[in-house]
Amino acid sequence: MIRVGIAGGAGYVAGELLRVLINHPEAEVKYIQSESHKGEPIYSVHSDLLYCDLQFADIDFNDIDVLFVCMGHGNSAKFLSENTVPQSVKIIDMSNDFRLKADAGEFVYGAPELNREQIRGARCVANPGCFATSINLALLPLAAAGILPQEVTVTGITGSTGAGQKPTPDTHFSNRSANLSNYKVFTHQHLGEIGETLVAAGAAEDTDIAFVPVRGCHTRGIMSDVVVRLDESLEQITEIFKRYYAEHPFVCVSDKPVYMKQVVNTNYCFISLQKSGRKLLVTAVVDNMMKGASGQAVQNMNLMFGLDEMTGLRLKANYF
Amino acid sequence: MIRVGIAGGAGYVAGELLRVLINHPEAEVKYIQSESHKGEPIYSVHSDLLYCDLQFADIDFNDIDVLFVCMGHGNSAKFLSENTVPQSVKIIDMSNDFRLKADAGEFVYGAPELNREQIRGARCVANPGCFATSINLALLPLAAAGILPQEVTVTGITGSTGAGQKPTPDTHFSNRSANLSNYKVFTHQHLGEIGETLVAAGAAEDTDIAFVPVRGCHTRGIMSDVVVRLDESLEQITEIFKRYYAEHPFVCVSDKPVYMKQVVNTNYCFISLQKSGRKLLVTAVVDNMMKGASGQAVQNMNLMFGLDEMTGLRLKANYF
Amino acid sequence: MIRVGIAGGAGYVAGELLRVLINHPEAEVKYIQSESHKGEPIYSVHSDLLYCDLQFADIDFNDIDVLFVCMGHGNSAKFLSENTVPQSVKIIDMSNDFRLKADAGEFVYGAPELNREQIRGARCVANPGCFATSINLALLPLAAAGILPQEVTVTGITGSTGAGQKPTPDTHFSNRSANLSNYKVFTHQHLGEIGETLVAAGAAEDTDIAFVPVRGCHTRGIMSDVVVRLDESLEQITEIFKRYYAEHPFVCVSDKPVYMKQVVNTNYCFISLQKSGRKLLVTAVVDNMMKGASGQAVQNMNLMFGLDEMTGLRLKANYF
Amino acid sequence: MIRVGIAGGAGYVAGELLRVLINHPEAEVKYIQSESHKGEPIYSVHSDLLYCDLQFADIDFNDIDVLFVCMGHGNSAKFLSENTVPQSVKIIDMSNDFRLKADAGEFVYGAPELNREQIRGARCVANPGCFATSINLALLPLAAAGILPQEVTVTGITGSTGAGQKPTPDTHFSNRSANLSNYKVFTHQHLGEIGETLVAAGAAEDTDIAFVPVRGCHTRGIMSDVVVRLDESLEQITEIFKRYYAEHPFVCVSDKPVYMKQVVNTNYCFISLQKSGRKLLVTAVVDNMMKGASGQAVQNMNLMFGLDEMTGLRLKANYF
Repeated sequence: MIRVGIAGGAGYVAGELLRVLINHPEAEVKYIQSESHKGEPIYSVHSDLLYCDLQFADIDFNDIDVLFVCMGHGNSAKFLSENTVPQSVKIIDMSNDFRLKADAGEFVYGAPELNREQIRGARCVANPGCFATSINLALLPLAAAGILPQEVTVTGITGSTGAGQKPTPDTHFSNRSANLSNYKVFTHQHLGEIGETLVAAGAAEDTDIAFVPVRGCHTRGIMSDVVVRLDESLEQITEIFKRYYAEHPFVCVSDKPVYMKQVVNTNYCFISLQKSGRKLLVTAVVDNMMKGASGQAVQNMNLMFGLDEMTGLRLKANYF
Repeated sequence: MIRVGIAGGAGYVAGELLRVLINHPEAEVKYIQSESHKGEPIYSVHSDLLYCDLQFADIDFNDIDVLFVCMGHGNSAKFLSENTVPQSVKIIDMSNDFRLKADAGEFVYGAPELNREQIRGARCVANPGCFATSINLALLPLAAAGILPQEVTVTGITGSTGAGQKPTPDTHFSNRSANLSNYKVFTHQHLGEIGETLVAAGAAEDTDIAFVPVRGCHTRGIMSDVVVRLDESLEQITEIFKRYYAEHPFVCVSDKPVYMKQVVNTNYCFISLQKSGRKLLVTAVVDNMMKGASGQAVQNMNLMFGLDEMTGLRLKANYF
Repeated sequence: MIRVGIAGGAGYVAGELLRVLINHPEAEVKYIQSESHKGEPIYSVHSDLLYCDLQFADIDFNDIDVLFVCMGHGNSAKFLSENTVPQSVKIIDMSNDFRLKADAGEFVYGAPELNREQIRGARCVANPGCFATSINLALLPLAAAGILPQEVTVTGITGSTGAGQKPTPDTHFSNRSANLSNYKVFTHQHLGEIGETLVAAGAAEDTDIAFVPVRGCHTRGIMSDVVVRLDESLEQITEIFKRYYAEHPFVCVSDKPVYMKQVVNTNYCFISLQKSGRKLLVTAVVDNMMKGASGQAVQNMNLMFGLDEMTGLRLKANYF
Repeated sequence: MIRVGIAGGAGYVAGELLRVLINHPEAEVKYIQSESHKGEPIYSVHSDLLYCDLQFADIDFNDIDVLFVCMGHGNSAKFLSENTVPQSVKIIDMSNDFRLKADAGEFVYGAPELNREQIRGARCVANPGCFATSINLALLPLAAAGILPQEVTVTGITGSTGAGQKPTPDTHFSNRSANLSNYKVFTHQHLGEIGETLVAAGAAEDTDIAFVPVRGCHTRGIMSDVVVRLDESLEQITEIFKRYYAEHPFVCVSDKPVYMKQVVNTNYCFISLQKSGRKLLVTAVVDNMMKGASGQAVQNMNLMFGLDEMTGLRLKANYF
């Protein structure tokens, strides 16, 4: 059994990790750390887990094989610089602190569909961002095939869980319900990791992504609509996508247009392709909390420990 | 023209007042006061009013005929004790500070369907609560007819706007969306004004209301389902309701079951009646922000100034 | 491995069964029958299962150990009268055709928290209705303790999946979104099975349930708020509930008020109790598709085949 | 008073027309025709209008000044070819039957921000489509200024009311709630009228619009995000937009990013502009039923009868 510790256990990402890991056949949650909730039962925060006996506890590096760090952006680097994690403990970091090459150190960028072999051998993995995951998966095959055009336009629509659990005006139900708005237009922080991923796969350095993130009126899920103009036929492009993802069990290329709820509460990314003239639409849907965060983190854990990639991740879709 | 001032202008209730009053043919908004937003355009807070030139300003009692006090529960009484409003200025208070007889002083409880004549002559009106409005309207005819049973059970389902604009865990979209929960079970603060209203209409002092307030996953609207057991036939009860509300233009007794969106964004209350054996269901739907707050306040203003009750309140339903 | 057949495979209930059963460690889906979709891949209907190779097929009773009948109300009885299912094949029927004593024949009412032992020995099980499940679980301990009062008032709020997949005005998004309405007031078809269940547990024959079903603006989940008036203290009642459910793993009695999303996409029922004076509120939340339908059916299958009740049902909550 | 007739009165568009027109100070609804509902009160279909005495009736061209034709796409042309509307009666058609030059005949395309003067003099107006309205308003100033680039990428997210009142799988609440999907990718029928409008304003004939329509999980409202790449500065572009719309009261150019609910239940279009490098995002939000349909139709009626454009259209936003 893989002995698991979770640092920063009171947030959404840690809750989702816990929901997956308590049913993972090869993992055992040894502790879930929270400064603010120490001593409380975990269901005081993650209230669906009423039947679960775990309590929030202190950190203890001695008894674990892997540590998931869920401290939030900026705090992860601080935490890891202030605490010495033994070399025997692998680390999966959920923040954006180690995703970019300039920050990575020994961290491998945890995109299995790009870096599966490196992840298998890694001690430290930086788990990708949610938007980055969906956009990368929509573009990787084009980049790898050398046919990604210079100009890319992306609209990515995300759910409220992407904004975390702190109540704010933007996540107030009265504002968000039945509403749509854009944010961080052309400047979203995931553009960095998207750019590095595409270049690593073969894209040109000057790929110019116009990314419009949209706040949707739903809680879970991202639909990224990527538009490029290129000459290859739909058949050629479909073949490129199917070949690229043939050995990646969590990415499915659909012959029919995909929609978001097909993947909610699962670790899947579904992709569909539509073309008219030179215009191509690639649509990628993921659950931002699963393939976009905690599910992909467990996928990475599976790889790092030599397990089948899907272990513990055959999750029932919520679907409705 | 009725010259209007609004004290406490940055909240939901003031915003809705403003949306009604800027199109009211007999009213002119002289100022909308806000301590925290003084000098800013009102659309900085009420962002739909982008085309409106008003700015948040200081209080000035000299230039107005009526003051709407939207300071929030507890703060209204404080504000009115610290400021001397000239006798020439009428006051409509939106909080619960003056609704109960023990607190009322010269305030008349602003339920037009109970107190229309007193409101016409009042200088000060305490505008009723939203749940109280829907439940009172569901029960007033039974109380007035002397057939309200001692035991009443009410489920009232409300939207997130009822909780105000401050972001909290309970109004977080990730929590509230697709969710239902109860709160203040059997203890909601509106029970006091409901009890006094029913007794004023003729109910027994020991009427026992089991009220379960429910947080719904919508923004606007209350549906109150009131169950009592009594012997009168559905025809008799329907006749009692239709007679009671015959002269009250904002209450409609429907022959078909009502539903909430029929009244959203309007000042109407729709009521339907269903009976099986001795069991009677009275369903009353209102928009908590309109008939449950700002719309009813303007209805009260109309009465206090001798206008037709519906002036400025023939609002297009949002409907969908 | 339990070999499973599903008759009537294109509806919501069959889809949810399939989502659970394809990951059930002791079950193997041999076929999923659909007249209208024969030969098509199951993902043509249950579109999340894009990665699943099953196709809709004909019935074949020879190769299975259990048949789930998902033909819809009325059609189940017809199907079973027109087809001879071998005695070696157990049957779990999802309709209301065999739930009432007068209709049951050899069918056992599949409420594990009432009839666990009979289910273990049964060849045929009639799976309970969704509202019935939540209301029964809210009332069974009171009935068994002999303290259920004669008058019971229930508001049950349900999601759109309860209405099935056929598009109708009542399930049209433009109508249902941000809306609330009542239906089948005091006459819902589940009242029969609720009454028989409570009497079986010890309630008086003349128990009078005023049941108001409400259409909520969500897809999955039921919250049933049950109000009764009785003298026992909250502590006594809590003790009665905790004792009743001590050995039933899918029912949790919470010390804090429960809310619906705690159980969505799980087979759990969470219950909370609140009291003021003689008024008691019992709140029971279930996922209408899981504990209210397909999840409970698998729970019944587990019992009928001697498995641990929870096998294959430790499902990740959707939670958000 | 303008005497109004409505042909095809049972759909969403007619309902919204009616909600506006019954409060319009210069209009009187003489009849609302419906074949299928003749003789019924209009609230049997438009159920918020419980207080309204109108009934569905026959067509009678003698007593009206203007006819709104709400027969649906294809049926309008048929209706007008089979019925002779007197020359004294003006016609506003809500379908797409007369929007394109090739189909128009004497119909003027009813976009007041492009064709105000022609509308003032027109007998027949073809009311624009909802997506077309939002996208045209986002692009018209660029086209008129001669700086619209050849490649345009648009994501337009719309509510369920855009799909009309017929229940379908795509508008089923269980499918649509908390979901997102694309449809008619690159082929939406409004592309024709958008193209003609832009060319009329000054765009090149070969403007290539990649339009991705998205089904959102809300009922009312469209947010169109238009991305182009061009050299002019944000200040220059803002100036171009503000000048273009200076005399158009229903279009507001906002200095802050707009969001959809600012305009829901109003006839406004709000527009915001954001730029980074050569990338420009123009965001336009409208209520698809108001500025996108019935509100704009009344705006056209006002123009055709020499009224102030805003008469009867100062509608309270639903806002929440």
